[in-house]
Amino acid sequence: MRPAQRREQLKDRLIAAAEQVIATRGLAAVRARDLAQDVGCAVGAIYTVFPDLNALVLAVNSRTLAMLDEVLAGPGEKGACAAADVAAAAESLVALALRYLDFAHRHPRRWRALFEHRMPEGEPIPDAHVAEQARLFTYVEEPLRSLCPKLPGRERMLLARSLFSAVHGIVSLGLEEKLVPMPMPTLKQQLALVVRAAVEGLLNAPSSAKPAEARR
Amino acid sequence: MRPAQRREQLKDRLIAAAEQVIATRGLAAVRARDLAQDVGCAVGAIYTVFPDLNALVLAVNSRTLAMLDEVLAGPGEKGACAAADVAAAAESLVALALRYLDFAHRHPRRWRALFEHRMPEGEPIPDAHVAEQARLFTYVEEPLRSLCPKLPGRERMLLARSLFSAVHGIVSLGLEEKLVPMPMPTLKQQLALVVRAAVEGLLNAPSSAKPAEARR
Repeated sequence: MRPAQRREQLKDRLIAAAEQVIATRGLAAVRARDLAQDVGCAVGAIYTVFPDLNALVLAVNSRTLAMLDEVLAGPGEKGACAAADVAAAAESLVALALRYLDFAHRHPRRWRALFEHRMPEGEPIPDAHVAEQARLFTYVEEPLRSLCPKLPGRERMLLARSLFSAVHGIVSLGLEEKLVPMPMPTLKQQLALVVRAAVEGLLNAPSSAKPAEARR
Repeated sequence: MRPAQRREQLKDRLIAAAEQVIATRGLAAVRARDLAQDVGCAVGAIYTVFPDLNALVLAVNSRTLAMLDEVLAGPGEKGACAAADVAAAAESLVALALRYLDFAHRHPRRWRALFEHRMPEGEPIPDAHVAEQARLFTYVEEPLRSLCPKLPGRERMLLARSLFSAVHGIVSLGLEEKLVPMPMPTLKQQLALVVRAAVEGLLNAPSSAKPAEARR
């Protein structure tokens, strides 16, 4: 095996080991010494394939984002959504929120790691990772395009992020065992209620958010 | 000074020291050894007045909740809000969201500590602390009473928590320097936009959330 190949293999094994730790014990349990032991290498060898543990965690988070991406894409609804149908667009936003809840519920530690991980002071998140995060918002922007066709692109992007954040807040505090804990069926009802209300309100808003469509 | 008095004094000084650490460096920086050094006592002395560091952190979080409570109460609007005026109730929810954002922005580490702190596995949050947390939601429930007078109490309580969580999500991800960062003026606009939309949508919803009032 050539050195480059060996490096790639070590990298993959380290990502798999870190992924396993994050999925079962959470981000805080990721430690260089344990990972080295898991894959059977020296601690120093980790730093021959990753500049630091942050890069390794980002590699795991990229995999989580790819999983989430697949879940949010849903069962082939992409075409249906473009059909500029207000009711369908509203329901696709509700469905999106419920898929997000489902993902967070099924993969709580992986999902939390996306939000808990912080780069060291002054170090920016690599562009490629930012792009992977940004892809998630396109799932919200798409139905918004049908709901509010007159909304300028930048406003739509901001609104998509705000709606994502609102849903994230309900999911995040709802799944926590403190402050706002809710059983799953209640959480689903509440998510659907708030998302439907927000969409309805956006349709009726006397602002640039108003769509060309007749109000339902 | 009697022993009981001395204990009370040590307790107060430890809370003040932990408060200072949380406010300036965050929850993760709270360490028994440093606190003992700050107040000039032995590490063991801490555990003569607090069962563990969690109890000390909860004491600091109680102070933060009291501060937040005061901010959310706002400048004497309580009476105005009871006036069952739909428009005023909607705007008081927007004002509440903006005050929450302002608090989080001015006291980021204190505020994060409210959500980052977790009790050890299996230990419940003390009832008194849960009650302090629950008080926050009454600020959301009050305007909802005017907006949706027919909504049963339990549904109103759930909706208040969901709206709080949605606002928390927008504030939380918006203030983070990752994923959904937004400058403050944008964040304020987005908060107001989403809260107004949700309220408008709740008023128009063909559900039990519909208020007795004529629609605006």
